[in-house]
Amino acid sequence: MLDLGVDAGRLTAALVDIESVSGNEAALADQVETALRGCPGLSVERDGNVVLARTDGGRTQRVVLAGHLDTVPIAGNVPSRVEGDLLHGCGATDMKSGLAVMLRVAHLVGTGELRPGVELTWVCYDCEEVEAARNGLGRLARDRPDVLAGDLAILLEPTDGGIEGGCQGTLRAVVRTRGVRAHSARSWLGENAIHAAAPILARLAEYRAREVDVEGLRYREGLNAVAISGGVAGNVIPDECTVTVNYRFAPDRSAEQAEQHVREVFVGFELDVTDLAPAARPGLDSLLPKAIVAAVGREPRAKLGWTDVARFGELGIPAVNFGPGDSNLAHKPEEHVSLAQVRSVEGALVRFLARD
Amino acid sequence: MLDLGVDAGRLTAALVDIESVSGNEAALADQVETALRGCPGLSVERDGNVVLARTDGGRTQRVVLAGHLDTVPIAGNVPSRVEGDLLHGCGATDMKSGLAVMLRVAHLVGTGELRPGVELTWVCYDCEEVEAARNGLGRLARDRPDVLAGDLAILLEPTDGGIEGGCQGTLRAVVRTRGVRAHSARSWLGENAIHAAAPILARLAEYRAREVDVEGLRYREGLNAVAISGGVAGNVIPDECTVTVNYRFAPDRSAEQAEQHVREVFVGFELDVTDLAPAARPGLDSLLPKAIVAAVGREPRAKLGWTDVARFGELGIPAVNFGPGDSNLAHKPEEHVSLAQVRSVEGALVRFLARD
Repeated sequence: MLDLGVDAGRLTAALVDIESVSGNEAALADQVETALRGCPGLSVERDGNVVLARTDGGRTQRVVLAGHLDTVPIAGNVPSRVEGDLLHGCGATDMKSGLAVMLRVAHLVGTGELRPGVELTWVCYDCEEVEAARNGLGRLARDRPDVLAGDLAILLEPTDGGIEGGCQGTLRAVVRTRGVRAHSARSWLGENAIHAAAPILARLAEYRAREVDVEGLRYREGLNAVAISGGVAGNVIPDECTVTVNYRFAPDRSAEQAEQHVREVFVGFELDVTDLAPAARPGLDSLLPKAIVAAVGREPRAKLGWTDVARFGELGIPAVNFGPGDSNLAHKPEEHVSLAQVRSVEGALVRFLARD
Repeated sequence: MLDLGVDAGRLTAALVDIESVSGNEAALADQVETALRGCPGLSVERDGNVVLARTDGGRTQRVVLAGHLDTVPIAGNVPSRVEGDLLHGCGATDMKSGLAVMLRVAHLVGTGELRPGVELTWVCYDCEEVEAARNGLGRLARDRPDVLAGDLAILLEPTDGGIEGGCQGTLRAVVRTRGVRAHSARSWLGENAIHAAAPILARLAEYRAREVDVEGLRYREGLNAVAISGGVAGNVIPDECTVTVNYRFAPDRSAEQAEQHVREVFVGFELDVTDLAPAARPGLDSLLPKAIVAAVGREPRAKLGWTDVARFGELGIPAVNFGPGDSNLAHKPEEHVSLAQVRSVEGALVRFLARD
């Protein structure tokens, strides 16, 4: 049984030691639910493998703390192990340390050690590390957006203890050329679809990505081929070639504008958008976000990557990424987190929430 | 039991009806061996699933008749079926009609109806339709080149009843680019290997293939991508891209010159040659080839494709392609051959062989 009274580092270790690879979060969700039910003043709800908790004390503003329960597959890195200041283990960075901080806040609220100036909602969800359709937060956003309502959402994904504002959008498209099959000994009877893809690769190679300032944060874009495929047999002129491209775009562009841009780049080619997730603006120009930036005491940066903050963005809720751990270590066997940083993130969050 | 006394069309039908997909030629080889042993004056030998036969009457020149026993997989097109002048069935074109003509010549020699002006060798071999390493003629060329010796080889592959001289060479190479993996949200940390392949496709798209006259025949070359592949995952900058190219070259170039040319086209790129088979010159400027061209009575053409004539070419034996059937129908479920053309090819071959 989870003891939320221990320090955030030890709690992280306990969470790492409960395996919760995507799709197998039930055991961890059970323990988290039980632990939250043990915190006085919180109403707790279970929805599938999502655990929701909230205070309802009549304060005017509400902050949502969100984090996922699942991890990528174990890579010989469970149970956790401590070496000096570093805790090693699957999810140490992404994001059981962030989850530990969320649960510590619930404990401190329950014991009265923390008297927050805002109402709080906790959302511990499943299936973040797999295809978007299974994402527990996405399911809530579609089916029960009311439970996610708030004035600021804090997603405790790893940001190395700094505030990262908003997120890039991401678009995937398949650009396709077609030709005519023929025997390669009589290639003039066919049309080579791979050769026809030459201008697609040339446009990608020549493409100069934008760097855009949005609300004071700098977003760097990218347009890249992530796959290419073509060919029938070693003696056949190929009749199809597909180039899969991925556009990462700044939050000054809507999903529709991003698609329009990609279609302009590849004008003249058949193009199918296969995946499109909007960017989220940093939203750092309102009071609550400014307050958490002040509590953290470091310059905020742009989030270069897509995260679930975009789901809050779509609901009109400002959202920031703020959690312990280096995101570059996520999904790696050597994943680890600094215990001092876990405590420091907890400290900054408590300072922010405790303000009048 | 095969009856070589029937006309060449009916014999073709009988051969089609004995299934002989590559690797399963034993039943057909048995029947062909028995039938040839029934022809007086021939010495017959079995070597694996190759059936060899020869006359040894002391004439000064020798003509080799060669053809394969195997077919591509059956596609609902066995047993054979006749519709007017057309015989439908697996191998009708490629090349049981040619095999029927070879066996008919053996029958006519055996009965004395044909008194050839040259010695004759028959080579009925296995595994032509699969990887080159299994080819029965290739095995003989390596291990027992003496049994293939002669002054002219006639390969009875489908040429629509005309003479096709020599064959193109073929070279396959993998052209490779390398890069550095990175998350596609931070693509500037990587190097995109697919983008780096842009000049490879540009050179292919711009390439102007040669048309070359060799001994009066026009060979048209081709350099084509036959496959392209790259990509790690939808969110990863790819670190490798491979383009497989196929160069079909005229017989004025040796295999070494062909490789040199391809390396020049892709200079600056990593390139591995994976497959290289030399071209064969048409060899139509000596007496025997001229005589068969005269017997057929049609303008010879260049063979645009690689065939086993190159194996004779490597042994210094002039070789031509000459057989019934349209090679464009080969390997297709609707494969068929004109019965009139099968008889006409037999007639031309008999006229050629019967000369003084």
